[in-house]
Amino acid sequence: MRIAIAQINPTVGDLSGNARKITEHLQKAKAVKADLVIFPELAVCGYPPEDLLYKEHFVRDNLTALNDLRPKTKDLTAIIGFVDKGKKGELYNSAAVLNNGKLAAVCHKEQLPNYGVFDEKRYFVPGRNELIFRLGAAVFGVNICEDIWVNDGGVYLRQARGGARLLVNISASPFYAGKLEARKKLLRQRALETRSFICYVNIVGGQDELVFDGASLIYNPKGELLAEGKEFAEDFLVADLGVAAAPKKSAKIVTLSAPKNGSTKPKIRTELLAPVSRIESIYKALVLGTRDYVRKNGFQKVLIGLSGGIDSSLVAVIAADAIGRENVVGVSMPSRFTSSGTRSDGKALAENLKIKFYEIPIEGIMEGYLGALKEAFVGQPRNVAEENLQARIRGNILMALSNKFGWMVLTTGNKSEIAVGYCTLYGDMSGGFAVIKDVPKIKVYELAKFRNAEEGRDLIPRSVFTRAPTAELRANQTDQDTLPPYDTLDAILKGYVEEHRSFDKLTKLFTDKALVAKVIRMVDLSEYKRRQAAPGVKITPRAFGKDWRLPITNKYKEF
Amino acid sequence: MRIAIAQINPTVGDLSGNARKITEHLQKAKAVKADLVIFPELAVCGYPPEDLLYKEHFVRDNLTALNDLRPKTKDLTAIIGFVDKGKKGELYNSAAVLNNGKLAAVCHKEQLPNYGVFDEKRYFVPGRNELIFRLGAAVFGVNICEDIWVNDGGVYLRQARGGARLLVNISASPFYAGKLEARKKLLRQRALETRSFICYVNIVGGQDELVFDGASLIYNPKGELLAEGKEFAEDFLVADLGVAAAPKKSAKIVTLSAPKNGSTKPKIRTELLAPVSRIESIYKALVLGTRDYVRKNGFQKVLIGLSGGIDSSLVAVIAADAIGRENVVGVSMPSRFTSSGTRSDGKALAENLKIKFYEIPIEGIMEGYLGALKEAFVGQPRNVAEENLQARIRGNILMALSNKFGWMVLTTGNKSEIAVGYCTLYGDMSGGFAVIKDVPKIKVYELAKFRNAEEGRDLIPRSVFTRAPTAELRANQTDQDTLPPYDTLDAILKGYVEEHRSFDKLTKLFTDKALVAKVIRMVDLSEYKRRQAAPGVKITPRAFGKDWRLPITNKYKEF
Repeated sequence: MRIAIAQINPTVGDLSGNARKITEHLQKAKAVKADLVIFPELAVCGYPPEDLLYKEHFVRDNLTALNDLRPKTKDLTAIIGFVDKGKKGELYNSAAVLNNGKLAAVCHKEQLPNYGVFDEKRYFVPGRNELIFRLGAAVFGVNICEDIWVNDGGVYLRQARGGARLLVNISASPFYAGKLEARKKLLRQRALETRSFICYVNIVGGQDELVFDGASLIYNPKGELLAEGKEFAEDFLVADLGVAAAPKKSAKIVTLSAPKNGSTKPKIRTELLAPVSRIESIYKALVLGTRDYVRKNGFQKVLIGLSGGIDSSLVAVIAADAIGRENVVGVSMPSRFTSSGTRSDGKALAENLKIKFYEIPIEGIMEGYLGALKEAFVGQPRNVAEENLQARIRGNILMALSNKFGWMVLTTGNKSEIAVGYCTLYGDMSGGFAVIKDVPKIKVYELAKFRNAEEGRDLIPRSVFTRAPTAELRANQTDQDTLPPYDTLDAILKGYVEEHRSFDKLTKLFTDKALVAKVIRMVDLSEYKRRQAAPGVKITPRAFGKDWRLPITNKYKEF
Repeated sequence: MRIAIAQINPTVGDLSGNARKITEHLQKAKAVKADLVIFPELAVCGYPPEDLLYKEHFVRDNLTALNDLRPKTKDLTAIIGFVDKGKKGELYNSAAVLNNGKLAAVCHKEQLPNYGVFDEKRYFVPGRNELIFRLGAAVFGVNICEDIWVNDGGVYLRQARGGARLLVNISASPFYAGKLEARKKLLRQRALETRSFICYVNIVGGQDELVFDGASLIYNPKGELLAEGKEFAEDFLVADLGVAAAPKKSAKIVTLSAPKNGSTKPKIRTELLAPVSRIESIYKALVLGTRDYVRKNGFQKVLIGLSGGIDSSLVAVIAADAIGRENVVGVSMPSRFTSSGTRSDGKALAENLKIKFYEIPIEGIMEGYLGALKEAFVGQPRNVAEENLQARIRGNILMALSNKFGWMVLTTGNKSEIAVGYCTLYGDMSGGFAVIKDVPKIKVYELAKFRNAEEGRDLIPRSVFTRAPTAELRANQTDQDTLPPYDTLDAILKGYVEEHRSFDKLTKLFTDKALVAKVIRMVDLSEYKRRQAAPGVKITPRAFGKDWRLPITNKYKEF
């Protein structure tokens, strides 16, 4: 049996564009004489469609799009994710089995994830997926994403017991660093457990804060990886699988009409990909997430405030990789507190990247504000108000350029900063997309180092790595005036944010109780800032986005 | 049987504060010799606790808080909402039945809402609530919020069939205009349907974007309203109910120890409240929502940019009503486009309200920006960039005062504006709380008129009502240069946003197809702005907040 995996990058809501993409891949599948071609979860409408599913007409249009694909499956079997509507108007997350121009069956997802970034129970009701399919000699079952993760004697096990020797799983599984390893381990186990081939197709592409990494997988019944799709790119995999014939006793089998192209196929060889480091995966996730956010939202160019620090440097490099250096504009906005080192580093980076570069000093504007506020501020000591004003002037300049030229502003804050609120609302937080919002500071350095190494030269100037991190909003300021060293901070934040550990548990790992308490308080108190932050690429198991829903008004005190 | 309803205002996460409040009301219940006192859903931890529930220690601390309340129910029966933890660590939204110092039983919520603003399936598993209670002669059942709404032969019906003649429902039911009428209609029907008394207790208070309106209710088996709690304030209701004895055959009845205070009670008379207009309810919702957001987040004073328009005028009046005029500061920030009329109206309002008032012109700062941007903008025509800059200068001034003095900035945008993106990110959208974010423009006028009438004078100057709405960001600008008249706009928005109506359906109601298309496009394209907006009080069935989860990246085109 020849199977093709169409690892595509659909766009949420783009029913006609997605249908075109699916059609192209149906043709590709015919061209390689595939018996079966599989597409990801909700390929027709994109994932996650969120409250678009509350619009009756959206669901209707998705059904129409699926129906229009039907005739394009002549002499082919295709499995395509879409939204099905039940008799009472209820919705199912579904896989259509299109066979030789007909809708042979619809399989409904049984396990609906409703945790982390997922809200599937908001929209869908769980189905009951009882069918098994025969195509030529091969018998297979179809299930959807979470269905193969949940080990409760559920759908995948029923399908194997019912005679399926190939389990097709169509997914939309968002990336975080380490997810692919977890996925491989699970699917290998499922292959061994069910003694079946596993064909897993994952969506690829960025959608708001999520990035889907693709990396579709095929396992044989011995748990051996046969083929894998690229990470962070569209791909089309073809493999010949020697699926064993099913035992006779199987019930509820739908026999599909086998394609007529089956006789004279040349053998297909599949090869595994070279392993990719975790840091490279993260980098690619950031690039794809940024590219898709910018492009799918119709922007051509982006604008970045270049401070000469590591964060904005990394964001500029990612942006150039994502949409091309000719589409990236950098702006340096020095004040009296800007050192000559950071100033020249920002410029050097722009030169290294060959991006358009402006320098717009903010000192005069700052004077204007201080003059206007003189009376109101009389007798008050200088404090964070003046510091934030500078950050906000810079935000305004970026937004003015954005409004004037139609460029999207990328913000440059990292996860450590946004976690503890070490950032200025309407200042450095101004912008459409927060590229490294989920990247802890220590990892920012690692990514920058990785990218320089890949380039074989100091694309990001060496001095950017060695200088003590500073916001440069007052004289001789460094981040460590306010924050603990970043290795400590990032470790505490991982425990508190990603793992929801308690103060008691954290203080077993970090002996400085006052420090842990301070970090927890900073995180809790800056929830209101995060609520007004731009979205950014999720790369950790718990990002500040859909998988972090803490109340702003929150008087919980655990110490 | 004497029942007391403790309509309290807990704070999310404030386990000790909430326990104190519950303790006070247990004492009140004893003082009036109540047999039974009921508290709202999740009274122990506040509603909704959101991802605090993902913290094991938070759930544990909530269980400890409940356990500490136990001894305080000597000679009393109390029903208190809390989070219960099952043997496998699963969580239940629960009601504890505390009786004479013991935990007599726990009732688990069966129907978990996971739509609109609700995410209960993210946290809880549905329970099975089989128990019925006997207290003296009275037999009653306990169910939780949604349990009494869902008409599927579920828990409330089972309880009535099992012999309950009183149904206690503990709720956390968020306000929108019209919700109380719906609730009354439903509960009356449930009373008639089950021939039982219905005692419904609702939480009261603001929690981020939600306001709970209280308005607890008691119905007799004839469907007659016996007593009602205040709207938008804490209340303590006591009523004597002649609950009929249960038929003998009832199964699964837990017999509670009856209090010893039952013999010599003077009769309690309950009276119904005077009816309240819908506009007054909305006004009160805005006041309570603002007060609780400011106070529960630890702020003393608020700051409002007063433009002399209707929106900021209304917000200032609401703020003064919420936290006292002495805690409200107004700032007028005129530019060259500010008319003398709006300028004097802003000042007059501040004088009428007797609030502290600053005037800080922005012209000089604007000049500074234009000078700094001169080179970058060379040859470019004036456009929205310059308009937004002015709004952002104002936002910065407000934030500078906020940072300097610790005042929370209230934003003044209405729902019509935020719907179509007629507002400036980091400009007039800067602030901690967006008081009238869910109030359509036409309703803003109604609320202002209502409040002036209540005051018996023009608290908000008359000219504010008669002037054509304008952002005053360029010469001779009015809102209607860009937007349709507000009555049309608000009607289209109601259809598109609140009712998720399609273009096809909307153009049956509004014949101007181009206009409908324009409004839809404006709404869709400004999703990114809403995602960075401050929270505000929900007063409609669908606000831009937790019940509006549209993707930013969204290529759905329905026309």
